[in-house]
Amino acid sequence: MSEERNGTRRGGPRKAQEIFDATLDLLAEKGYEGLTIEGVAQRSGVNKTTLYRWWPSKGALLGAALIGARQLELTPPDTGSLEEDLEALLGTMTTLLTERPASDIAVAVLGAVTHSPELASHVKDFFADRIAREQVVFDRAVARGEIAADADPLLLMDLLAGAAWVRIVLRQLPLEKGFVARTVRTVLKGARDVG
Amino acid sequence: MSEERNGTRRGGPRKAQEIFDATLDLLAEKGYEGLTIEGVAQRSGVNKTTLYRWWPSKGALLGAALIGARQLELTPPDTGSLEEDLEALLGTMTTLLTERPASDIAVAVLGAVTHSPELASHVKDFFADRIAREQVVFDRAVARGEIAADADPLLLMDLLAGAAWVRIVLRQLPLEKGFVARTVRTVLKGARDVG
Repeated sequence: MSEERNGTRRGGPRKAQEIFDATLDLLAEKGYEGLTIEGVAQRSGVNKTTLYRWWPSKGALLGAALIGARQLELTPPDTGSLEEDLEALLGTMTTLLTERPASDIAVAVLGAVTHSPELASHVKDFFADRIAREQVVFDRAVARGEIAADADPLLLMDLLAGAAWVRIVLRQLPLEKGFVARTVRTVLKGARDVG
Repeated sequence: MSEERNGTRRGGPRKAQEIFDATLDLLAEKGYEGLTIEGVAQRSGVNKTTLYRWWPSKGALLGAALIGARQLELTPPDTGSLEEDLEALLGTMTTLLTERPASDIAVAVLGAVTHSPELASHVKDFFADRIAREQVVFDRAVARGEIAADADPLLLMDLLAGAAWVRIVLRQLPLEKGFVARTVRTVLKGARDVG
């Protein structure tokens, strides 16, 4: 948790971390419909009027929480190997999509995309933040000469993340043993040989 | 539209096709909340009691419509080349996800996964039906010697479909020119060289 993200430096209330974590806890427990500013105030011990001062709606609060909460925190791996870094990233993703409470958050986020344009725009910001943070994994791989400088990290992450989302959330099938390693190997091999 | 699918052979009311099409039209127009058996009856010109006789709930009707309706119909391509077949499949998918009214259906289906276990189970059936229909594309490619007999069509389709879902629905980014061809080339190259 960097100081830039806990709200004090970027402009946010004290206890921003507690507020964000409480917001995603409540989303996981009660779904978007059951999420209320009142509930977040109670859970985080922060006055409701303070919350409204910073976030005019629960949609705005959820948007901030998706990026700031500890439950979805992403520290880019740095194993020294692109393959292992991608396995770590995809492994984290499959955990988020299969293990509660994170999987409840993922499903609620998915529902949120379809719920309103405002929420869809927060989900868009969340995914933009993810790829921005994942970029360093590819920068290091280019520096090590593991992948071409014109490789397309967005396409590679879409393939990896997409396989997990489709298999787990849409098909609702269990992941076979070795899914993460095989998926990464397939995508990486493809990426290395396609211009 | 095969005779097996229009309801008369599999056990369904007359005008099953009109019923399924009307169900998805209404889903696209009004979302799941606004979809009613009454509305489907009006749109399709079929008596409401007939609908209830075949499908006890709107969830059950939607489940049948996802598989039977013309809007999501999938005729597996047969171009003589796996690469071109997969481009056709992914091209159809990106069209379904980006062009109305199909994209409204896709978003509503996505919402449905999160709405109730019953709907989630219909979505699961829909995706099981898709991969079963797509299998022939891979069978033909194996017969032509284009891909190894132990290639994993499920993983390949998850990668292709997943890239489209993540890029379009989650990231909400436009598809760059050449997305379909490049995605297929990457996945196919990866699949050919990974055991």
